[in-house]
Amino acid sequence: MKKIGYLGPRGTFTEAALRTLAAADDAELVPYATVTMALDAARAGDVDAALVPLENSVEGSVSQTLDELASGDPLVIIDEAAVQVEFSLMARPGTTLEDVRLITTHPHAHAQCRNWLATAVPDARVVPALSTAAAAEEVSDPASRFDAAISAAIAAEHYGLDVLAHGIGDNSFAKTRFVLVTRPTAPPAMTGADLTTLSLFIHDSHPGALLEILTELSVRGVNLTRLESRPTQKQLGNYYFSVDLEGHITESRVGEAMRGLHRVCAEVRYLGSYPRHDGAMPTVRQGVSDEDFSDASSWLKDLREKGIS
Amino acid sequence: MKKIGYLGPRGTFTEAALRTLAAADDAELVPYATVTMALDAARAGDVDAALVPLENSVEGSVSQTLDELASGDPLVIIDEAAVQVEFSLMARPGTTLEDVRLITTHPHAHAQCRNWLATAVPDARVVPALSTAAAAEEVSDPASRFDAAISAAIAAEHYGLDVLAHGIGDNSFAKTRFVLVTRPTAPPAMTGADLTTLSLFIHDSHPGALLEILTELSVRGVNLTRLESRPTQKQLGNYYFSVDLEGHITESRVGEAMRGLHRVCAEVRYLGSYPRHDGAMPTVRQGVSDEDFSDASSWLKDLREKGIS
Amino acid sequence: MKKIGYLGPRGTFTEAALRTLAAADDAELVPYATVTMALDAARAGDVDAALVPLENSVEGSVSQTLDELASGDPLVIIDEAAVQVEFSLMARPGTTLEDVRLITTHPHAHAQCRNWLATAVPDARVVPALSTAAAAEEVSDPASRFDAAISAAIAAEHYGLDVLAHGIGDNSFAKTRFVLVTRPTAPPAMTGADLTTLSLFIHDSHPGALLEILTELSVRGVNLTRLESRPTQKQLGNYYFSVDLEGHITESRVGEAMRGLHRVCAEVRYLGSYPRHDGAMPTVRQGVSDEDFSDASSWLKDLREKGIS
Amino acid sequence: MKKIGYLGPRGTFTEAALRTLAAADDAELVPYATVTMALDAARAGDVDAALVPLENSVEGSVSQTLDELASGDPLVIIDEAAVQVEFSLMARPGTTLEDVRLITTHPHAHAQCRNWLATAVPDARVVPALSTAAAAEEVSDPASRFDAAISAAIAAEHYGLDVLAHGIGDNSFAKTRFVLVTRPTAPPAMTGADLTTLSLFIHDSHPGALLEILTELSVRGVNLTRLESRPTQKQLGNYYFSVDLEGHITESRVGEAMRGLHRVCAEVRYLGSYPRHDGAMPTVRQGVSDEDFSDASSWLKDLREKGIS
Repeated sequence: MKKIGYLGPRGTFTEAALRTLAAADDAELVPYATVTMALDAARAGDVDAALVPLENSVEGSVSQTLDELASGDPLVIIDEAAVQVEFSLMARPGTTLEDVRLITTHPHAHAQCRNWLATAVPDARVVPALSTAAAAEEVSDPASRFDAAISAAIAAEHYGLDVLAHGIGDNSFAKTRFVLVTRPTAPPAMTGADLTTLSLFIHDSHPGALLEILTELSVRGVNLTRLESRPTQKQLGNYYFSVDLEGHITESRVGEAMRGLHRVCAEVRYLGSYPRHDGAMPTVRQGVSDEDFSDASSWLKDLREKGIS
Repeated sequence: MKKIGYLGPRGTFTEAALRTLAAADDAELVPYATVTMALDAARAGDVDAALVPLENSVEGSVSQTLDELASGDPLVIIDEAAVQVEFSLMARPGTTLEDVRLITTHPHAHAQCRNWLATAVPDARVVPALSTAAAAEEVSDPASRFDAAISAAIAAEHYGLDVLAHGIGDNSFAKTRFVLVTRPTAPPAMTGADLTTLSLFIHDSHPGALLEILTELSVRGVNLTRLESRPTQKQLGNYYFSVDLEGHITESRVGEAMRGLHRVCAEVRYLGSYPRHDGAMPTVRQGVSDEDFSDASSWLKDLREKGIS
Repeated sequence: MKKIGYLGPRGTFTEAALRTLAAADDAELVPYATVTMALDAARAGDVDAALVPLENSVEGSVSQTLDELASGDPLVIIDEAAVQVEFSLMARPGTTLEDVRLITTHPHAHAQCRNWLATAVPDARVVPALSTAAAAEEVSDPASRFDAAISAAIAAEHYGLDVLAHGIGDNSFAKTRFVLVTRPTAPPAMTGADLTTLSLFIHDSHPGALLEILTELSVRGVNLTRLESRPTQKQLGNYYFSVDLEGHITESRVGEAMRGLHRVCAEVRYLGSYPRHDGAMPTVRQGVSDEDFSDASSWLKDLREKGIS
Repeated sequence: MKKIGYLGPRGTFTEAALRTLAAADDAELVPYATVTMALDAARAGDVDAALVPLENSVEGSVSQTLDELASGDPLVIIDEAAVQVEFSLMARPGTTLEDVRLITTHPHAHAQCRNWLATAVPDARVVPALSTAAAAEEVSDPASRFDAAISAAIAAEHYGLDVLAHGIGDNSFAKTRFVLVTRPTAPPAMTGADLTTLSLFIHDSHPGALLEILTELSVRGVNLTRLESRPTQKQLGNYYFSVDLEGHITESRVGEAMRGLHRVCAEVRYLGSYPRHDGAMPTVRQGVSDEDFSDASSWLKDLREKGIS
């Protein structure tokens, strides 16, 4: 039986995301206290894969995921998942909304439910917790001083709580993205709606470096869907870039762009090609399809041999 | 007497950073539980200014700071601070290193002290806390089940703990950057070593948008020192960019670049020009000094009037 | 009475073009043997203006016009003209097409009439002449050994020849562009369909110079309609660029682009803003209208003064 | 025995340039009256190759060479030559400088000798000729009304004239470049100091087309040494670009750039890779050597197969 690690504890959005993946169906799901621990378990082979947040998380730290993937023993992403971040107010059975005076939750969750809280329970006070799941767990203790927790609906199931209000977040578009990583392996087959994730380390931090990187991509018609500059941990004022590209490493435009990046960067760390969770197909502009690349190669070959094509 | 808010509790790196700023010397320092609360206090005028982490934090969430500054009532940055993130192992007086079996700290701090922990206290177990300062506070309780906390040295002072080991972080370059924000006001005077922070919202998320933005900057010789793409909270798949530019809004090259961004972006939110904490002077390439801009304007004026200059 | 010089002799396409300009209506038209002589006459004030070919000429040398305008005492373009290059076969009265055995014309005209000649007078031989007008003049001499000339229709009038065939050129799109230059003066009023001509001298001939120049233009949404690299006459391997921009020097986007070029180039020689002969309006992309520039300036002014706009 | 055509008549700078090429050593040299005729002879196989001016010529028309090479049956450049354009004043034996009243020469030659003429023979008049060689031929006729011709030194030999003054041009840097073309064939071997000539036809004449082309080149570190926009002869307002690139078609950076141009242009006409006459080695920036390209390809291959390299 397969084992898949994830950022715990039980009842987090990460667990909810993991349950949307086919890989989780007949696997043993193992929670880890931190992103680092989950990734180390994948590196060590204690689990076959691990799911961690990569973007816009209300749990764990996305920066930490990025930095962990960019250094240490290599890992590659083989799948991604996303869940709508829907917050629920939950309490021990018997508690009603009117009873709620003291709430606990993670500060991000608190920030995202401010409007609802101000209207529905204007007199309640909110105390920070380590995670939304930890808040639910705390409230599930009959001796707890807290009346309610703000957490994912899945946490109510896990900790035997009743949901007093669903969908209390201010932003109905909030979505968190997670990636399933494993030890290096050939990428899953291209689906046509794929992403490729890279960490790009530049030679010195010269002003034009990022423009240079973006130009390598745009010349081959490769679009970015995420870009972050992150300080390297080796030297002050030194940055690397974490990027997601539209397309699969086996596609010509992605391959040529990656070769270009390899030539201009100090180091390119490949973090995998994998299907998008939303199946959104990329816009591929004129001239950068695999057929266009193949035509251009035949043309050049003829010219080199005969001076005409 | 001035009041300055900050991301608490007492004993955080944020407090340590605040104490490096002249503005804090004769001000009342007010801790807030979350970044959101600290910023809201500044918006409401409850405090004159607030200090929050902007980059590479082991406390609070940088993404949250970015998102809070990019929306809601406007705030501007008037100063920045940075502190070396040096972790200490601290315990109640009388505890020795040999006694340490159970440690608490924030997961990021744990991640950054792994090597030292594996060597110095290989048998100790680490349990996550809400913040490094909260960990220290917890340990200061004689009834605590924890033997020690990993936290900033300043926390030991606050909570009456003894430092068992200094500088236990794996990365001696780790630094966190904080910004002091206030309600909109004219920028502090140019020092020559200034940064300007902007949030850039683009028209649709078209592929070339970032390249367009970087080109507006590079054409005027304006260097970026930080760039992050962040999902907007209005629509799925929509991004904004948070950037720091080298230079002050009153400088010609920065002004013309900002006017350019204003013309190509859907919205540019100005978040202030302020002196760099490290006093690092920018590299200003040939042709983009204030004098170069002024010469070019005189030349154009002559041509428009007389056809010759 | 005004005097306007032009590249002669009488009967050239240049004279035909000059007659399309309002300025020629009540002026004395003075032919000069070479482009250099015509321009020198304008510089010396011997004529009020001079018309010379700038693009795609079958007469004189466009390179020479470019080089002459790029050096020496400054001149500015105040108007342009264009004529369809329509070639006619002409002969002394009494000659029929069947009689034509020996033809004279300028080599360019010969090249452009090859198909017609091969079909209509397959046995005729063509001998090069100094210009199409000189060929007509030669044929008008009853003692000439030539039976016919290929020239502009206007030359038949001047030299008393009969046109044996009209429109014998292979390319019905051939058009030549001419510019009317004068000593430096304020530009004619903007019409909305204007061009601006510049000579751009770069610092050293570094590889990226042209890309830099084009980027200064594209960032302000200024389109090029003509670009040529020309060797400077000062040093081997050194180039300057001769360009036509869409727009008028008084327009904001053109002005800012010119100021940008002034800052990055070793020298920018302004050669005038003037109405297009074809009245073609430029495509002005979103964000670069005069109003957009003016809005951006107001916005920046507010931010500099109050930190908010 | 090989036959090589050139732009005649005998005694032109083109002939002088041809004599600097090894290919001319034991070949029959055949003058043609026009560039078109010389190229047509090469196309038809009447000659094995033809030499025509490509840049900065005082003879024939460079535009015509460009347009002829860009259309019609394909030809490729296999070598280039350049000669210093040194003008001499020449006359029939017995004539002295004091006798010179009436001079003939090509208008470009006249333009380039103005300073010397004004000083040395201030009272002489200059009459345009069809070419500098034609001027010399005319003067060699004892019945000629002209006292002297300005021409290339080689013309004095051919037409039995005495040189009255050497090096009378105003610009000692003037140099004309010629290319030797032949029917399509594999390129000569790479020397390390090579050029590649292309004609680039774009899809419509959209504003960013040239920037796009330059970016395809600069991304692969390929430098331009010549660029001209030329009107196509198919449609008004439509342009193509004639360019010389540093490097040989068999080099990786040139090959990838050409494949890129093939993908973005409507048509790329390859006009040959050939050694530079001056042996000037290109500056090849970091990351674009053949080895860099080959390393990048191996790296990508590993990633595609194993997810790690």
